[in-house]
Amino acid sequence: MGATVTIALDAMGGDYGPSVIMPAVAIAAERHPDARFIVVGDAAQIEPELAKFPVLAAKVELIHTDVAVAMDAKPSQALRKGRWRSSMWLALDAVREGRAGAAVSAGNTGALMAMAKFCLKTIEGIDRPAIAGIWPTIESECIVLDVGANVGADSRQLVEFALMGAAMARALFGIERPSVGLLNIGVEEVKGVDEIKKAAAVLKAAPLPIRYHGFVEGDDIGRGTVDVVVTDGFTGNIALKTAEGTAQQIGEYLRAAMGRTLLARLGAILARGAFRALKEKMDPRQLNGGIFIGLKGIVVKSHGGTDATGFASAIDTAYDMASSGVVTRLTNDVTYFHAKLELEGAA
Amino acid sequence: MGATVTIALDAMGGDYGPSVIMPAVAIAAERHPDARFIVVGDAAQIEPELAKFPVLAAKVELIHTDVAVAMDAKPSQALRKGRWRSSMWLALDAVREGRAGAAVSAGNTGALMAMAKFCLKTIEGIDRPAIAGIWPTIESECIVLDVGANVGADSRQLVEFALMGAAMARALFGIERPSVGLLNIGVEEVKGVDEIKKAAAVLKAAPLPIRYHGFVEGDDIGRGTVDVVVTDGFTGNIALKTAEGTAQQIGEYLRAAMGRTLLARLGAILARGAFRALKEKMDPRQLNGGIFIGLKGIVVKSHGGTDATGFASAIDTAYDMASSGVVTRLTNDVTYFHAKLELEGAA
Repeated sequence: MGATVTIALDAMGGDYGPSVIMPAVAIAAERHPDARFIVVGDAAQIEPELAKFPVLAAKVELIHTDVAVAMDAKPSQALRKGRWRSSMWLALDAVREGRAGAAVSAGNTGALMAMAKFCLKTIEGIDRPAIAGIWPTIESECIVLDVGANVGADSRQLVEFALMGAAMARALFGIERPSVGLLNIGVEEVKGVDEIKKAAAVLKAAPLPIRYHGFVEGDDIGRGTVDVVVTDGFTGNIALKTAEGTAQQIGEYLRAAMGRTLLARLGAILARGAFRALKEKMDPRQLNGGIFIGLKGIVVKSHGGTDATGFASAIDTAYDMASSGVVTRLTNDVTYFHAKLELEGAA
Repeated sequence: MGATVTIALDAMGGDYGPSVIMPAVAIAAERHPDARFIVVGDAAQIEPELAKFPVLAAKVELIHTDVAVAMDAKPSQALRKGRWRSSMWLALDAVREGRAGAAVSAGNTGALMAMAKFCLKTIEGIDRPAIAGIWPTIESECIVLDVGANVGADSRQLVEFALMGAAMARALFGIERPSVGLLNIGVEEVKGVDEIKKAAAVLKAAPLPIRYHGFVEGDDIGRGTVDVVVTDGFTGNIALKTAEGTAQQIGEYLRAAMGRTLLARLGAILARGAFRALKEKMDPRQLNGGIFIGLKGIVVKSHGGTDATGFASAIDTAYDMASSGVVTRLTNDVTYFHAKLELEGAA
């Protein structure tokens, strides 16, 4: 990349605050030597943690505030109390002012989205930002959105999600024309999915920088059928959690099966390395981070209960997104798309 | 059980017809010595398959018809061409007339549901039948409905799904007051899930033969948090397919990991028995069959592409449901519930 990439961090978010976040910054700093960090939060809590990693001294700018958004704060409450001065707000504000290329917080999702919308604003032409998840597949990875920002989506929003996901696939996977599928169910003549059908018609006809694949079903996500899976936030969130639950469940089955007989236990010892690789592959911390997309800046939401490894992986995602120019590209795509639609009178 | 249980089978449904279905009947006949079977379809195709299992001679009544519903028939088309005379219709009709306790078909889902509604009719007081799936959990099994009959559901339908699922849990798992959860997403202050919230209020307050647990998320399904998970058919279908896809995906990872090194391969050989047990546990054929619930009779839809093991498991489910009196119990529960609601003026 050459140029420096700066990431702003809300050090007070998540279940553990600076004690998890500063070690995560140390991991990320080692992985990305050109990265710099703006760390926002209570200096009295951050400084002792920061002191444990002397290598960070030259790379971290500390911004003190003693206001933090509570993990159980409602979005409206968080906005009222935390605007202008909380660690969450100040991290976002660094992105707004261009001092940072992305912000990362492990705070409350609803509060973070409300504040991000207020601080960064939505890209012109985009109706609602979405939360995108990076989903491991048999092949590699795909992007699924929305995984929880909004319940329901009309056809226009679904098309915008497709553009947003495609911009991310370009930024993160380096695919110039990503394949995009609309999540649907495989039953003929079903009613009530008119919005999805309408979105399909637009995606099929419009001159977009994507390859529209058609409808995909739930099992296509993990199969890696497409680079981008588009759905509304309710369905996407249920799918994501269901997949996480299934992975845990199979992990339990596997553990139980491998402990049942002496031979199985012996086999498990011999295959230890393979099991470790499998465990790493299935580790949800490897792909930690919901990416807020559609705003005039990049925000990554880390799981609140994650450890330093998980938070470092959220910083990785923020770094990749920040160094890819995804916001500019997405803004151009959206402008072009809406201009085309207007020209064709189809809007 | 004592009394005989008769199962009606559409021998022409599915991708392979009688060549898969007759061996499945032989498996089921061995498992359930008191079971009898009405097999409907083209006698010229069925008789040679039937001849391979002499033990079935005394247990199978063959009803000939040369009309079969095509696997790709649209529901309206299937009804028009297949009513009164197709193998699918005649199997359902045996249930309607009380000659069979349940019908099983591997035919087209939409056609089967349309025909089942027309032939068997919906139970009085139930708005729409649902398709229920039996879902393996870490603990044991749970019932998820709707997994695909209808897109969207209002609060009344969700409450009816809860009653329907509870009746099934009673029949299949022997739990007198099953726990019931409403599938939802864990984000605070979300909009658009009013129907789910309204259903929650009714389930909390109404004197129903269930233990209402509250909201559950996607990862609670496989965890076995509740006996019955209630959702609309779109979300339920996406969740089911996503879980199936995730299980396949992890199976792939496991295979790849176990083949990577010599030690891992050796370990896998020693743990062969454990892997076999795991494979069986994860075998989707073990729990094959979507159960149509809410009709005045029991219908089980088998996967179209399954083999004899899978179809036999669908017959198992039909047998368990038929011998449990679930339709009578559900009819009473629904009548009682609606009478209560009317008394309270809450309907």
